[in-house]
Amino acid sequence: MVGHAFMGAAHSHAWRTAGRFFDLPRRLELTAVCGRSEPAVRAAAERYGWESYETDWRKLVERPDIDVVDICTPGDTHAPIALAALAAGKHVLCEKPLANSVAEAEEMTAAAERARADGVRSMVAFNYRRVPALALARELIRQGRIGTVRQVRASYLQDWLVDPEFPLAWRLRKERAGSGALGDLGAHSIDAAQFLTGQRIASVGALLETFVTERPLPAEASGLSGTAGSERGQVTVDDAALFTARFDGGAIGVFEATRFATGHKNAMRIEVSGSAGGLSFDAESLNELGFYDRAEDAGTAGFRRILVTESTHPYLDAWWPPGHLLGYEHTFTHQVRDFVTAVADGADPRPSFAEGLRVQRVLAAVESSAAALGVHIPVPS
Amino acid sequence: MVGHAFMGAAHSHAWRTAGRFFDLPRRLELTAVCGRSEPAVRAAAERYGWESYETDWRKLVERPDIDVVDICTPGDTHAPIALAALAAGKHVLCEKPLANSVAEAEEMTAAAERARADGVRSMVAFNYRRVPALALARELIRQGRIGTVRQVRASYLQDWLVDPEFPLAWRLRKERAGSGALGDLGAHSIDAAQFLTGQRIASVGALLETFVTERPLPAEASGLSGTAGSERGQVTVDDAALFTARFDGGAIGVFEATRFATGHKNAMRIEVSGSAGGLSFDAESLNELGFYDRAEDAGTAGFRRILVTESTHPYLDAWWPPGHLLGYEHTFTHQVRDFVTAVADGADPRPSFAEGLRVQRVLAAVESSAAALGVHIPVPS
Amino acid sequence: MVGHAFMGAAHSHAWRTAGRFFDLPRRLELTAVCGRSEPAVRAAAERYGWESYETDWRKLVERPDIDVVDICTPGDTHAPIALAALAAGKHVLCEKPLANSVAEAEEMTAAAERARADGVRSMVAFNYRRVPALALARELIRQGRIGTVRQVRASYLQDWLVDPEFPLAWRLRKERAGSGALGDLGAHSIDAAQFLTGQRIASVGALLETFVTERPLPAEASGLSGTAGSERGQVTVDDAALFTARFDGGAIGVFEATRFATGHKNAMRIEVSGSAGGLSFDAESLNELGFYDRAEDAGTAGFRRILVTESTHPYLDAWWPPGHLLGYEHTFTHQVRDFVTAVADGADPRPSFAEGLRVQRVLAAVESSAAALGVHIPVPS
Amino acid sequence: MVGHAFMGAAHSHAWRTAGRFFDLPRRLELTAVCGRSEPAVRAAAERYGWESYETDWRKLVERPDIDVVDICTPGDTHAPIALAALAAGKHVLCEKPLANSVAEAEEMTAAAERARADGVRSMVAFNYRRVPALALARELIRQGRIGTVRQVRASYLQDWLVDPEFPLAWRLRKERAGSGALGDLGAHSIDAAQFLTGQRIASVGALLETFVTERPLPAEASGLSGTAGSERGQVTVDDAALFTARFDGGAIGVFEATRFATGHKNAMRIEVSGSAGGLSFDAESLNELGFYDRAEDAGTAGFRRILVTESTHPYLDAWWPPGHLLGYEHTFTHQVRDFVTAVADGADPRPSFAEGLRVQRVLAAVESSAAALGVHIPVPS
Repeated sequence: MVGHAFMGAAHSHAWRTAGRFFDLPRRLELTAVCGRSEPAVRAAAERYGWESYETDWRKLVERPDIDVVDICTPGDTHAPIALAALAAGKHVLCEKPLANSVAEAEEMTAAAERARADGVRSMVAFNYRRVPALALARELIRQGRIGTVRQVRASYLQDWLVDPEFPLAWRLRKERAGSGALGDLGAHSIDAAQFLTGQRIASVGALLETFVTERPLPAEASGLSGTAGSERGQVTVDDAALFTARFDGGAIGVFEATRFATGHKNAMRIEVSGSAGGLSFDAESLNELGFYDRAEDAGTAGFRRILVTESTHPYLDAWWPPGHLLGYEHTFTHQVRDFVTAVADGADPRPSFAEGLRVQRVLAAVESSAAALGVHIPVPS
Repeated sequence: MVGHAFMGAAHSHAWRTAGRFFDLPRRLELTAVCGRSEPAVRAAAERYGWESYETDWRKLVERPDIDVVDICTPGDTHAPIALAALAAGKHVLCEKPLANSVAEAEEMTAAAERARADGVRSMVAFNYRRVPALALARELIRQGRIGTVRQVRASYLQDWLVDPEFPLAWRLRKERAGSGALGDLGAHSIDAAQFLTGQRIASVGALLETFVTERPLPAEASGLSGTAGSERGQVTVDDAALFTARFDGGAIGVFEATRFATGHKNAMRIEVSGSAGGLSFDAESLNELGFYDRAEDAGTAGFRRILVTESTHPYLDAWWPPGHLLGYEHTFTHQVRDFVTAVADGADPRPSFAEGLRVQRVLAAVESSAAALGVHIPVPS
Repeated sequence: MVGHAFMGAAHSHAWRTAGRFFDLPRRLELTAVCGRSEPAVRAAAERYGWESYETDWRKLVERPDIDVVDICTPGDTHAPIALAALAAGKHVLCEKPLANSVAEAEEMTAAAERARADGVRSMVAFNYRRVPALALARELIRQGRIGTVRQVRASYLQDWLVDPEFPLAWRLRKERAGSGALGDLGAHSIDAAQFLTGQRIASVGALLETFVTERPLPAEASGLSGTAGSERGQVTVDDAALFTARFDGGAIGVFEATRFATGHKNAMRIEVSGSAGGLSFDAESLNELGFYDRAEDAGTAGFRRILVTESTHPYLDAWWPPGHLLGYEHTFTHQVRDFVTAVADGADPRPSFAEGLRVQRVLAAVESSAAALGVHIPVPS
Repeated sequence: MVGHAFMGAAHSHAWRTAGRFFDLPRRLELTAVCGRSEPAVRAAAERYGWESYETDWRKLVERPDIDVVDICTPGDTHAPIALAALAAGKHVLCEKPLANSVAEAEEMTAAAERARADGVRSMVAFNYRRVPALALARELIRQGRIGTVRQVRASYLQDWLVDPEFPLAWRLRKERAGSGALGDLGAHSIDAAQFLTGQRIASVGALLETFVTERPLPAEASGLSGTAGSERGQVTVDDAALFTARFDGGAIGVFEATRFATGHKNAMRIEVSGSAGGLSFDAESLNELGFYDRAEDAGTAGFRRILVTESTHPYLDAWWPPGHLLGYEHTFTHQVRDFVTAVADGADPRPSFAEGLRVQRVLAAVESSAAALGVHIPVPS
C-alpha cells in the first residue's frame, strides 16, 4: 500500500478485516506500506499492522514478495505508481479519481489493458459501489424494478470549507488534487450515476465556483492540514460544481458537488426516477434505501425505507443480524473482498481503469463546459 | 374571480375564510365568479359561495359592485383580463406565472405601474411565499441567521405524467400554458429562491426534456382532463426542466422542475446554504423548516426540525395551538389576508407584477439557454 | 353550538366549510352560538359566521329553529347540555371525552339510546378518526393487511406544561376537566387504539404523575389562560399518564399521555403491529401513514411512507391533487360531513355515545389502577 | 474468549481492532478462544484470529498466559465461568444480562468485589453505552443540558419471531436464556435508562406476553437455530414485555421490549424528557442523536438531528471525518478500549457487575410484577 493517511487507514482496516468475515479465495498478507517520511511510515506500519515499510514507492512496486499494489496517495502520483506497478506485474487497486487528467488516465487504462493480457488485474476504488444500499439499488434497476431510467438527481454535500480559515490543504491545490469538490466528491456521484443506471453520461453543462479564493497556508513544521499558518495562498480548485447531464440511454440528470453546504457533513445523495419506480439514497443514512414501486396499488404506494441489513442483501451475509448497521469502512472491506475474489478467479474487477477513465472524461467535460459558460460539452466515449 | 377549477376552489376558500381567522381591515364579499360554461359557473357559484356569476370576464371586470378581480385562469388569458381589470380600476390578484411570455408580462407590469398611480393595486399569486415555514425562512435570512447566502438547491418534484396514458390536458399545451413543468413548477422555485435569498437570478444554463411526446387527447364530451380519448396529440411543453443559475449577489443555484419524479407527489423543496447556517424545506412536510446554525457549539450542532406552528411564527397567531398542522389551502388564505391588508393600507402587496415579470424573464432565459445547448444566458434586469 | 373557544373555532370552521367541499345531503345553517359572556359570544357569532347567539344553553337547546346541538364546552357541562338537547329532540355532537365521570357518561348513553328510538342521533367527537391517515389505517386493518393485531404502542406527547409558570387553566382543574393529560390526550389514544384494532381494552395497569403541583392562578381580569396572576393554586389533575393494556382480542398495548414531553408539541403517535404487517402514525406528520407489509419479498420490504393525499384515500376526493397536504381543522370538517350524512340517512354516526362511554370506563380504570399501585383493573364491558 | 457465535464474532473483531484505531495502554493478544465443539472452535480460532483454542472453559480460565476472560456464552453459563475466572485472578468482561437470576448475579457481584481487592477488574458488556450518540446523550444530561429528567420512553423493537415457524432457539428457552425479549432486549433499555438519567429504577409495573407458545425444535443434525425440524416444543420465555417504572430521582418511564414489532429490525429507541430539553435516539439511525434545547428562542426551537461523527464526540477522534458513519460492531471496539484502559489504569471499568446486578433486579421485579397482575414491585437497592 502506498500512502497511509485517511485512505490508508481505511484500506489497511479492509485488508486486515475482509478475511475475518468473508470466505476469501486467498489468504491476505499485509506485506509492506510505503510513505515518504520514515518515522511516519514506521508508525503507520505498526499501527495498521503492516509487516514492513518502504519510503520509496519505486522500491515497493519492485518487491518480489508483493502481489498487489494499493494506491492511496493524492491524485498527482496515481499515474506513475500505477504504471510502474503494472509494469512490474502487480495487480493494482487505485484510489479515485483515477488520475488528475484525461491524458494520465488514458495512459493508465492502456497500461492496464496491456497488463491484463498477462493476467494482471486493476481496479479503481469507487467505494460507494460497495455500499450495500447502492449495490441493492443496482440490482433492482437491473431487474427492471424501476423500469426505464429517466432522471438522476445527485448531490454530494459537505461543509468543511465554510470556515474561511480552514487551511490550504493539498485537496485545495490543483497541482496535487486535479480539481476540488468536482474530482473529490463529484467523481463519486458520476460513477454512482453511471453504475446504477447502466447509462453513460453523454454531455454536461456546468458551472464551477470558488467562494473563498485565499486561505492560510498550513503550518510548515507540522505539515498537518488542520493547522493554519500565518501566510496565505490561492485556492486553485473549485469549492462547488454544478452541472446538468444527458445520458446515452435517454436519461437526464442534475449534479451538485460542494464543500459549502452548511450543515451537511457527508451527504452523498442520489435519486433515480424511472418509468416504473424510484430509488433514493443518502450516505448520512448509509444503511437505508428508499424504493417506490409503481406496481403497488395506488392507495398504499409510498417510498419504502428498506433497512439494508438482511442476510439476502449484498455483502450482508457476512455481518450481523437484521437491523444492526454497517459503517463507512465496510465499503472498503467489501471492495477488498470483490477485488481479491476477481483476481483469484481471473475475472475483471470492476470498476476497471477504463471506467475510471470514463469518469475522468466527464470531469474534464465539466471543466470545459464551465470554461465555456456552461454550454453542453459532449463526453467522448 | 375568473376561473373556478382547482385554483378557483382554493381561492374561493381563501376569500371565504380569511376574515374568519384574521382581523382584516375590510369585510370581504364574494360578489361574482366567472366561467365560460353557464351550467358549470352556476354550480361553482353555488358550491363555493359566490353571490352571482358571469360567463364573460369582460362583463365581470366592468361591474361597479366589484373592487378586486382575482384571475385563476390558464396563463394565456392572464394578460387580457388583467389589463382590462386594471383599466377598469380594479385591484388585481393574478395567478402565477404572471403570463405566457415576457412581452405580456411587460405589458401587464407597465399597466400595473400606471394603475398604481391611481391607487389601484396588483399582485401575483406565488402562494408558497405564504407557507409559514418559508415566510419564517425569509425572516431568518433577513436577520442574518445564515449569513451570506452562497448556494440554493431547489427542486419541484411531481410524478403525474409518468403514466404515458395521462391525457393531453391544457397544462401540456404550449399555447395555453406557456411551458410545462418549467412554468408551472419551476416558476414557484424561482420566485421562492429570489424571495428567500433577496438575490436575483442573473444568468441560467438549462436543459429541457419531454419524455413522452404524444398523449391521448382528452375525451371531447366531458372536457375533463383526467379522461383519455382515442385520438392522440403532441405534447408541446417540457416534462422536466433542469438549470444552474448565478445570482446577482454571488450565490449559485441548481434547479429542477419535473412531472416525472416517480413517487414524489408535490415535493417543492428548497435548501439555502449560507456562511453562517443553512435552511431546508419540503412542501410534503409543509409545517417544518430545517435550520442549521453554525453558531451552535460543534458538539451539539445539527439541523433542527422547527415545527412552524408556534403563535410567534408568521400567520400562526390566527390558527391552532402548537403542533396542530396547517394545510395547502392555508397559503391562499394567508395570501388574501396580505393582499387585502395591503390594499386597505394603500401599500404595495408583494410579489408585485414587476416581480412576476422578473420570474417570467428567468423562465424565458431558461428556454433560450436550453435552445442554445445550455450556454448561460443573462437575465435582463 | 355551545362554547366558542379553541374547539368552537374549529367546529365553526367545519360547519361553514363541509358543504363547500363535500356533497352533503343537507344544506347547513349556522343558526346560533352560545356562551356565557354576552360581549364575547356576540363577537364570536360575528367572527365565526353564526346568525344569532344565546347566553344560556338552556334557551339554545329549546330553540325550534335548531336541529343539531354541538357541544364544545369543558367536560363538566357535557352531561347536562347533552341530556337537555336529547330531551328536546336535537341531534347531538359532543366533544370528547364524553363526560367527566362514568356515571355521567352512562346517563348520557342511556339518554342517547332512548332518543335514538325517536330518530335522534348522537355522536362523540373523537376527531382523530377523521384524520385520513388513520381512516386509511382502519381500512387496511379491516382488510387484513396486517393480519392479527398483536401490539399497540400509543403516545400523545405535548410539552406546554414544562414551564412551571404556565397558569392553572381550567384543563388543570379536576372539577372542570375530569382529569389531565389522561382525559385530554389519552382519551384520543384509547379511542384510536380501539377504533383501529377493532378490539376493546379489557384491563389496564397504570401510573399517574403530577410533576408541578402548584401553579399561578390565571389573572382575574382577563380570564385568559395564558396570563399568570400572582396567586397560586393546586394542580388537581395528572401531568402524565402511563399504562399497559390487554385487549379483548389478545393484543397488548402500552400508552403514554403527557404534557411534559419537552420538544413535542402535538405528537399523537400510534403504531400497530400485526402478524402480517405494521402501521405507524404521528400527528406531527399528519398526512403520512407508515405501512410495513410482510407479504413483500424480504429484500425490498420496508416501512412505506404513504402520503395520504390520493383521491382514493378517505375524504381526499374532496380536496387537492396528490401531495397537497391537509391540516388539523380538516378533521372537524370530515366529522361534520360524516355526522350530517349519517343523520340525513337515518344511520348511526360513529363513534356513538356508547363508544364514548367505553373510553370513559377505560379512563376510570386507569385512575383506579394508578390508585392501586398499578395492578391491572378490568374494564367493564 | 468463551463462546464464538454472534457475540463471539463481534468481540473478536473488537479485540483485533481496538488497538488499530485507539492508543491503548496495552498491546492486545488474542490468546485463546473456547467452545465445546472442537471442529467449530478450531474454525473459529482460524477465522477470528485467535492463536489457540480450548474445548473446556475450565482449562481456559486456568491458563497462565491469559489475563482477561471475555464471556460470550448464553446466560446460564455466565456465573460459573465468571466465578472461576475471577477466582483464577483473571479480569472478566461478561456479556449481558449478567446472569439468569438475581442469586447468580449477587454471587458474581460479591466475587467481583472480592477480586477487586486484588486488582482484578470486571465489567458487564452493555455495549449500547458505547454508542457515541448515547455516550453524548449521557454527557449532555450530566452537563444539565436537559435539566431535571422527568420522563423516559424506551422501546426495543425487533420482529424475528413474527414468523410462527421460526424455530425454538436457545434464546426461547428459559433454562438457557433466563427470559425472552425482557432479558435480551429490555436489559439494554433498563441499563441505558439508568445510565443516561443517573437515576435508578425504584419500582416497576409489568405485563409479559408470549404470543406463539409452541415452535418447531431446531433440526438436530445442524444445530443451527435458523433451521426448523419436524418436532415442536414449548416456548418458555416472553415474546414481549411492557412495563411502567418509577425512578428514585422522581422520573417516570415506560418500557417495551418485543420480538413481535413487525417491520422493526433492531429499533432500540430511547427518549428522555427533562425540564430544560429532550433527547431521542434510535439504533436504526445509530449515528444520530435528537436534541431539543428549551434555551433556544421559541421561534427557532426544534429537535436537532446531531450527526454524532465530529471528532469532539465520544470515541470519534479515532475514526473518520465528519459524516462518515460507524456501525454496530464499533460499540464493541469502544468497549474493549474502555475496558483495557481501565484495567491498565487500575480503574473500575463501567458498568460494573454491581450495575449488572442492578439491572438483574429490575428484570426480576418485572417478572414478579407481571405475575402479580402488574402491581408495582419495588426494586431492592
